Amino acid sequence: METYVHGGDIYRDNIEMDFSANINPLGMPEAAIEAAITGIRRSVHYPDWKSETLVKAISAFHGIPEDEILPGNGAAELIYALCLGFRPESAWVPAPGFQEYEAALTAVGASVHRIFLEESNGFRVDQSKDVIDVLLKDPDIAGTCTKNGPEGSRLAETTPKLRMLFLCNPNNPTGQLLSKTVLKEILAYTEKHHIMVAMDECFLPFLPDEQEYSMLSELENYQNLIIFRAFTKIYGMPGLRLGYAVSGNREILHKMRRVLQPWNVSIPAQMAGTAALGAEDFLTETRVLVRKEREYLENALSHGLAEKVYPGSVNYVFFRSRLDLKEKLREKGILIRSCGNYAGLDSRYFRICVKTHPENEMLIRKWKEIVWQNPL
Amino acid sequence: METYVHGGDIYRDNIEMDFSANINPLGMPEAAIEAAITGIRRSVHYPDWKSETLVKAISAFHGIPEDEILPGNGAAELIYALCLGFRPESAWVPAPGFQEYEAALTAVGASVHRIFLEESNGFRVDQSKDVIDVLLKDPDIAGTCTKNGPEGSRLAETTPKLRMLFLCNPNNPTGQLLSKTVLKEILAYTEKHHIMVAMDECFLPFLPDEQEYSMLSELENYQNLIIFRAFTKIYGMPGLRLGYAVSGNREILHKMRRVLQPWNVSIPAQMAGTAALGAEDFLTETRVLVRKEREYLENALSHGLAEKVYPGSVNYVFFRSRLDLKEKLREKGILIRSCGNYAGLDSRYFRICVKTHPENEMLIRKWKEIVWQNPL
Repeated sequence: METYVHGGDIYRDNIEMDFSANINPLGMPEAAIEAAITGIRRSVHYPDWKSETLVKAISAFHGIPEDEILPGNGAAELIYALCLGFRPESAWVPAPGFQEYEAALTAVGASVHRIFLEESNGFRVDQSKDVIDVLLKDPDIAGTCTKNGPEGSRLAETTPKLRMLFLCNPNNPTGQLLSKTVLKEILAYTEKHHIMVAMDECFLPFLPDEQEYSMLSELENYQNLIIFRAFTKIYGMPGLRLGYAVSGNREILHKMRRVLQPWNVSIPAQMAGTAALGAEDFLTETRVLVRKEREYLENALSHGLAEKVYPGSVNYVFFRSRLDLKEKLREKGILIRSCGNYAGLDSRYFRICVKTHPENEMLIRKWKEIVWQNPL
Repeated sequence: METYVHGGDIYRDNIEMDFSANINPLGMPEAAIEAAITGIRRSVHYPDWKSETLVKAISAFHGIPEDEILPGNGAAELIYALCLGFRPESAWVPAPGFQEYEAALTAVGASVHRIFLEESNGFRVDQSKDVIDVLLKDPDIAGTCTKNGPEGSRLAETTPKLRMLFLCNPNNPTGQLLSKTVLKEILAYTEKHHIMVAMDECFLPFLPDEQEYSMLSELENYQNLIIFRAFTKIYGMPGLRLGYAVSGNREILHKMRRVLQPWNVSIPAQMAGTAALGAEDFLTETRVLVRKEREYLENALSHGLAEKVYPGSVNYVFFRSRLDLKEKLREKGILIRSCGNYAGLDSRYFRICVKTHPENEMLIRKWKEIVWQNPL
């Protein structure tokens, strides 16, 4: 069976501090822990296959209709369900980007094209053209459709070959945000060309002004849009598995539901999620802490530790180093994410998550030791 | 979105006692509850995608190699993964039978054929012929293959059209066991004809002599065999979601793994499962209680309550009644499983699970009230 190389393998490495998984440094809200424990005692029953209480809470939290929400056993399950339910013929993914998009797509035989983000531009996508120009390399789109013209729309109706575009905002591991303007242009273009847009917003809740970037407010405007959200990162509960998909196109969710077992979300996860959404102070506290600590880390890294730091936006920092940093930090009991196995990157790139100040300080101290021991 | 009609809907009905879901009357082992609670506190980490500790425990419990085991978010997830990973062109399912086989198969576009179990034979399958004769109705098998001959084998090699046969031992909802002799004959025949056999043994652990019936000992002999097992029923943890698939053909598990997210089993489920396997007394106690109470229920039902009782084997009782029993018991706060929506059955058929003696007594008392109020 293949090996998954994501964050560090805390189950098989001997690790004291894990900077490789982008989890809220505050952990799980206490109310969510208590709710999950109550959920264990109730687990002699089957879970509610509708996750009704949870769905109502998500609906109220975002102000979106209940039937536009599909909960899952982590957002990862829903990414697979989208691919398994639609089996797109081809798809585009950002490179570098979260590797499960490509894993899920290749599992259904889709041919995967990469949209390479340019280091020269700090891995940012500043204009919709950066993405659309890559889509245009598809012979079906480039050869027979005018870019925005009526021919394109007609073609989409007669040859409904399904294509999918995955985007992540902010992108992981690079941390760069996509603006709403750019996203709207991409959505308008892709909708015309029968391309579904799978928008991963799992890290967006770390942003104090997430509404400025989230496409949740645009659900009704684009029938080709599906958004993924997770409790995993923002509410520090990756071990419980809870995420959700949202779309204004109920047919998309319906097709995903068909490839999922009825009882895909456990009782502890449903209850923890519902409780977490009520923890408003936790969210505020998280955002304040993460911003402050990201700035602390970015500043420290920029002063002699990293070769280059790419200014991020949420709870992780992406950088380049001339050192074999992952191995050297592991010797000191710290795990970070080497990004050498991401398409479009190499072994000089790394990602660390933002943790609490004492932990971040400890990382910087150990890192400085390494730099002193390995002069240029 | 469609409605699932399985056991009762305890989330939307007002129910005091649920006899509709076949869960261990003793609930979850205390050690499993404690382990799951510890698991909640560890859930700030991602689950081990290998479920290594759990897999080692299952391996030791059954005496089968670790790489022949694939854990899932309930057995139901794995039934879907099998169908999604293989996308069989056609398949056979027992009727009546667990409805998720058919749901998963139709989700991948398989054409589903039903093997109707005969009421006249007490819904039993006494000989492999009962199943094989139905398979022979497939034109590809009947028209071009001799039943056991070399032609059949050669054909399977040249046209590897994938077919699947689902079996459940004991069958749900009817409770009838399939003998090992019958199963071996079916496996030998199907292996020759390129038919995969998906064997659901989720209820078998309730049987004191489960080894007499389980095909776990036959894994190495049949490359077309996959077995499903669950913690759900025997360890009373449906809300936590935990099951596993076992096959001597690692390629089957590998293909299933590809359509599953890496982190499909939560930390509380992994830890609860590992702890449950150590609770030997719990298993013995369960088997003694379930046998005694099933006999109590079957005996009570046979004396004027049910029209006909089909002698069962594990923790549920299947019967026929002239009354609108589900509705009448619901008025008294008790939920039972109406089997009217099973293929091959009608609204006269019902299933109840075996619970503790006081609960079973209460059911019988309320049921007697209904019978007295509705004389023939």
